[in-house]
Amino acid sequence: MGQNGKAENISFVLEDIKRVKFETSPVPTLQDPHDVVIRVKFTGICGSDVHYWDHGRIGQFVVEKPMVLGHESSGIVAQVGPKVKSLKVGDAVALEPGVPCRRCDDCKAGHYNLCSKMEFAATPPYDGTLTRYYRLPEDLCYKLPEGVSLQEGAVVEPLSVAVHLVRQAQVSPGSAVVVFGAGPVGLLCGAVARAFGAAKVIAVDIQAGRLEFARTFAATASFLPSRVAPAENARALVLEHGLGQGADVVIDASGAEASVHTGIHLLRPGGTYVQGGMGRDEINFPIMAVCTKELNLKGSFRYSSGDYKLAVELIATGQVRVADLITKTFKFEDAERAFEAVKAGQGIKTLIAGPDGHKHSRSSL
Amino acid sequence: MGQNGKAENISFVLEDIKRVKFETSPVPTLQDPHDVVIRVKFTGICGSDVHYWDHGRIGQFVVEKPMVLGHESSGIVAQVGPKVKSLKVGDAVALEPGVPCRRCDDCKAGHYNLCSKMEFAATPPYDGTLTRYYRLPEDLCYKLPEGVSLQEGAVVEPLSVAVHLVRQAQVSPGSAVVVFGAGPVGLLCGAVARAFGAAKVIAVDIQAGRLEFARTFAATASFLPSRVAPAENARALVLEHGLGQGADVVIDASGAEASVHTGIHLLRPGGTYVQGGMGRDEINFPIMAVCTKELNLKGSFRYSSGDYKLAVELIATGQVRVADLITKTFKFEDAERAFEAVKAGQGIKTLIAGPDGHKHSRSSL
Amino acid sequence: MGQNGKAENISFVLEDIKRVKFETSPVPTLQDPHDVVIRVKFTGICGSDVHYWDHGRIGQFVVEKPMVLGHESSGIVAQVGPKVKSLKVGDAVALEPGVPCRRCDDCKAGHYNLCSKMEFAATPPYDGTLTRYYRLPEDLCYKLPEGVSLQEGAVVEPLSVAVHLVRQAQVSPGSAVVVFGAGPVGLLCGAVARAFGAAKVIAVDIQAGRLEFARTFAATASFLPSRVAPAENARALVLEHGLGQGADVVIDASGAEASVHTGIHLLRPGGTYVQGGMGRDEINFPIMAVCTKELNLKGSFRYSSGDYKLAVELIATGQVRVADLITKTFKFEDAERAFEAVKAGQGIKTLIAGPDGHKHSRSSL
Amino acid sequence: MGQNGKAENISFVLEDIKRVKFETSPVPTLQDPHDVVIRVKFTGICGSDVHYWDHGRIGQFVVEKPMVLGHESSGIVAQVGPKVKSLKVGDAVALEPGVPCRRCDDCKAGHYNLCSKMEFAATPPYDGTLTRYYRLPEDLCYKLPEGVSLQEGAVVEPLSVAVHLVRQAQVSPGSAVVVFGAGPVGLLCGAVARAFGAAKVIAVDIQAGRLEFARTFAATASFLPSRVAPAENARALVLEHGLGQGADVVIDASGAEASVHTGIHLLRPGGTYVQGGMGRDEINFPIMAVCTKELNLKGSFRYSSGDYKLAVELIATGQVRVADLITKTFKFEDAERAFEAVKAGQGIKTLIAGPDGHKHSRSSL
Repeated sequence: MGQNGKAENISFVLEDIKRVKFETSPVPTLQDPHDVVIRVKFTGICGSDVHYWDHGRIGQFVVEKPMVLGHESSGIVAQVGPKVKSLKVGDAVALEPGVPCRRCDDCKAGHYNLCSKMEFAATPPYDGTLTRYYRLPEDLCYKLPEGVSLQEGAVVEPLSVAVHLVRQAQVSPGSAVVVFGAGPVGLLCGAVARAFGAAKVIAVDIQAGRLEFARTFAATASFLPSRVAPAENARALVLEHGLGQGADVVIDASGAEASVHTGIHLLRPGGTYVQGGMGRDEINFPIMAVCTKELNLKGSFRYSSGDYKLAVELIATGQVRVADLITKTFKFEDAERAFEAVKAGQGIKTLIAGPDGHKHSRSSL
Repeated sequence: MGQNGKAENISFVLEDIKRVKFETSPVPTLQDPHDVVIRVKFTGICGSDVHYWDHGRIGQFVVEKPMVLGHESSGIVAQVGPKVKSLKVGDAVALEPGVPCRRCDDCKAGHYNLCSKMEFAATPPYDGTLTRYYRLPEDLCYKLPEGVSLQEGAVVEPLSVAVHLVRQAQVSPGSAVVVFGAGPVGLLCGAVARAFGAAKVIAVDIQAGRLEFARTFAATASFLPSRVAPAENARALVLEHGLGQGADVVIDASGAEASVHTGIHLLRPGGTYVQGGMGRDEINFPIMAVCTKELNLKGSFRYSSGDYKLAVELIATGQVRVADLITKTFKFEDAERAFEAVKAGQGIKTLIAGPDGHKHSRSSL
Repeated sequence: MGQNGKAENISFVLEDIKRVKFETSPVPTLQDPHDVVIRVKFTGICGSDVHYWDHGRIGQFVVEKPMVLGHESSGIVAQVGPKVKSLKVGDAVALEPGVPCRRCDDCKAGHYNLCSKMEFAATPPYDGTLTRYYRLPEDLCYKLPEGVSLQEGAVVEPLSVAVHLVRQAQVSPGSAVVVFGAGPVGLLCGAVARAFGAAKVIAVDIQAGRLEFARTFAATASFLPSRVAPAENARALVLEHGLGQGADVVIDASGAEASVHTGIHLLRPGGTYVQGGMGRDEINFPIMAVCTKELNLKGSFRYSSGDYKLAVELIATGQVRVADLITKTFKFEDAERAFEAVKAGQGIKTLIAGPDGHKHSRSSL
Repeated sequence: MGQNGKAENISFVLEDIKRVKFETSPVPTLQDPHDVVIRVKFTGICGSDVHYWDHGRIGQFVVEKPMVLGHESSGIVAQVGPKVKSLKVGDAVALEPGVPCRRCDDCKAGHYNLCSKMEFAATPPYDGTLTRYYRLPEDLCYKLPEGVSLQEGAVVEPLSVAVHLVRQAQVSPGSAVVVFGAGPVGLLCGAVARAFGAAKVIAVDIQAGRLEFARTFAATASFLPSRVAPAENARALVLEHGLGQGADVVIDASGAEASVHTGIHLLRPGGTYVQGGMGRDEINFPIMAVCTKELNLKGSFRYSSGDYKLAVELIATGQVRVADLITKTFKFEDAERAFEAVKAGQGIKTLIAGPDGHKHSRSSL
């Protein structure tokens, strides 16, 4: 870590529900010749971070010992292993925060996101990236091209989630796509769908303000559901937006039962539905419509082969303007306040600067 | 129709719920140069026929005027239009009983089963095949090869349903497949999955007797669910049958909520679930498992391009022994008794002979 | 035909190699309730038209009796059959000039372009569209949206060829695509590839002037091959344009042996090559590279399900600016001069107005 | 290695063209906690082994320093690393002899066979498996189930090549498949195609004796080409075997120009051709048929995700009877004679026992 002597690692740690602290620990060392150590510069807060902080668990994942939070990060390469070829000290990178085993059938079949041995940042028991130094294999660090800032680099993670969702959805030129939920992932799905050539991207949310933002960001139109049955909202949306037999693709980034229902009823025969939003484990679900319309439903879980790479390119080419989503950047020492702001629904994407401050630009490394 | 002078058409007609009658009408005439007229020889009874008879409707399809029942039929070509090339009078054929419009986007994209203008036998308001003569376009009549009987020809329809289901499921050599429901379609799905190379086909049903038959027919193993939670049954099945991370494919041919739940929990990450069975419109459904295991769910509706052709081949090559499923053949005049027998759950597949009797072999045409 | 009494049909007919004439014949009548009759307004000249005019044949297709030329047309609906619902007299449409049988396995499987009974305009023995009135089924006429001119409508045909090529190539966001040949189809492939999200589109041609135009039209870069071995040109292109292990996709719209060779050598392992250009039947071909790089090669033949629809949308949304390709419009009576201009390589896309003149705008119908 | 104290490694080494020797070297040690060391029991000879022995090179791969030959091997686990979980000392395994980097885009996208850093046995500069002890990662050793012999285990490698070829070909139930070349790989392709449900498998070879064997092994029919043009042979085969518009799939396991030509002409429109056989780098090739029939051509290179696993299952279930292909097993000390026999075209698949003799059964380990 050398040049500035800041050798101790400081991290933002979740001890127990709603109880956080700052803790120092040894700086991580290279464990494999392909490893690099990154000085973390910016970390976005994800709904899952807030959920662990607020409830101590997500589904089967339970925080049983103190865990560093955060997994949406960018940083500067601080140390490289002897076999590292594509990166050098000082490079600005986006971090892909899950390390797969690389040896199981899922890894070898091209969907390492399904690896049962995945070590994923800030998913218990693995520590996250709200820390000064973080170790990753070289191939999970994506160099940020000229013109992409480190702040934008912290948004590559949720953008990769959106890329994976849209790929699962097989959006193609001319598609009519409806996206439920206008939070960060839903907004990004809309932008990615446009980059995949979607002719129509209709944002659906129950907050009119979010829909307004969605239209300025990427959606071609929006729909505010009424308090009526899902099938009725579906009919209204199809009519209002001239979708004929229905939408080609529905992406749910809300996790709400009403969205799922409306989404299924919205689709044309043979259409595709992708579930991204996390909500209740079980919901009431219109299964017969799946059968008689011969729909395709897919889950989408994190990201896999090629998603990060494409996410970086979409930012670099200007096709997805992630900077527009960044509402506020908190200092590292104010991390808890950042969590409170996100929980309170303030802004769209909130960042926390690394412990060494957010003044550090790429050049002043 | 000529040779035997039986020119009037006699049909088995559903007038109203539980009210049937025999009715004569003019023999259908060729309406297009590609049409043929078929003398119907055998017709299987499908759950949907019984459902219309018993309830007068299925979902949005309501019997509003008298309708001829039946759609699983074989017969002998009695008349051919001037442009018919592949068939001649006297040929034994299986009937594909739905005529698509051939002009809409769905038809031209290769999934005519989704055609919104489909005219399907015994789906209101279209008359079915429990009649003496039935008209179809040449390309929807599939010549039965040497060695395939007309009785077997009547089972091509449900076999095509199974072929479509298994194709939707993308079963491939080595797959571990679990089939819920051991009625005719579930049993046939098992056999087709074997023909597609499935290494394991596990039949699930709540009747032990059906499971016993399933094992003699095509299943490599079977599972009788206990009265426990679906996730628990799923765990038990996976353990008992050595499925490791779970099944590759689940096919539901039962329509029961418990089956759907158990099926979703049974699947390995990245696995595929196909819904074939028709049950309640809405059910309680474990949607988060779809998301976190990144499952693929698909509906399967009737059959489409190539399904009938493959079904005939699977019978001809002996890969699917449909004759084993045929429990009893009723005379045409006993059609109502046949419906009662099916409703009472007697046997597996029940046929009704055509009005001219079931003695008519292919040679004695 | 009605309002102006021009009831006789006049056509531009190829009698024999290099021998053309104008001929009158009866106006076509509706033959099916789904038919419409179109008054042709503009027709583009295709390389195949010129080839028939110049050589009397293309491969196995031989002009054995006089044949009307032309198949890239737009027009105004002049008459509609009783079952036509989506069109009315006066509508401006692009014509899809091949009528498939709709009944064969290929038609029903979703690739009607492979139908062996296809009746395709200006492919012997079927007459083409350089005529006053032309009959087509409703579903092969695509209404031009507001803002799309009839001249642009005549370019929908070659654009559909390009759409089909790019779909065969499975271009997706981030792809690096190399297109050989900067004639109309090659140029359009570049533009469509961009609409499909290609990050790089590199045009290759042996005429520097065409490359210059390609860069203004849609290509992100271009490459002028040197007089060296194909593998050497391939290496140079990959290096010069930073393609790393090679291009993701190569589309050949040239038909030249050197292009094919260079294209195969350009591809990364696992890359995709699509052959669109027509040249010699047999060429020297680097087959071992296909094997060891496990390449995907595909032919692309005309267009099929959904291609025309997408082509119209790409023009309407401004994603493909076909108007930029239209160099000159000849009067119908000057049709032969138009052919001579195309043969001489003048301009990019040459149109011939319909017999009633090119002054007829949509409004002055 | 323990129990019998044979600690030194003895290998069969290619020094230079046609010059081989036996050489001892240290026994390989575990280099990674996931590694195992295998005592090699049987090794099949592949055409590529013979080619290196005979010519010192294959394409760009040149033997520049002494290299151990052999890569089709089975063996017994002799040592396991501390993280190995699925294997224990004494297990009988088939060896997958290529170790990918696991970190590049190709590896992570599910096609590690295209990894540019692949370390493949007996492909220069990497040593092969004709040795006493060989090290591999655990996940590349496939446990042989009860009933599968170690001799059969040595044939898993070429069977995996065939599995990969047939998967590339997308053979499905009902397919008509033509396989060119009736050597080991061609024969195995025929058997695998049957396991994938192919209705017709037609073997083509210029040696009538091989065709006779092919028919007893897996082919449903065979074809001996005449000395006529490829298109004529194609026509004859299609007619003779009732293929209608042509074959659905052609697999070339011959590498001969005449086979490629005939194969392309044999295919129906939309059919699939897979190149497996290695021959001349460049051949005369009917490219226009690819275009107008819109064919799919693919290379097939070695094997990838899931191929070995399926190969073992196909042997275990009896679907592919690889034992029928094993003609003769040579002693390790007679390895050179084995190479001579293969070069002379004797038998089908020739094995060489491991240095410790071929008496070692699984139980006498």
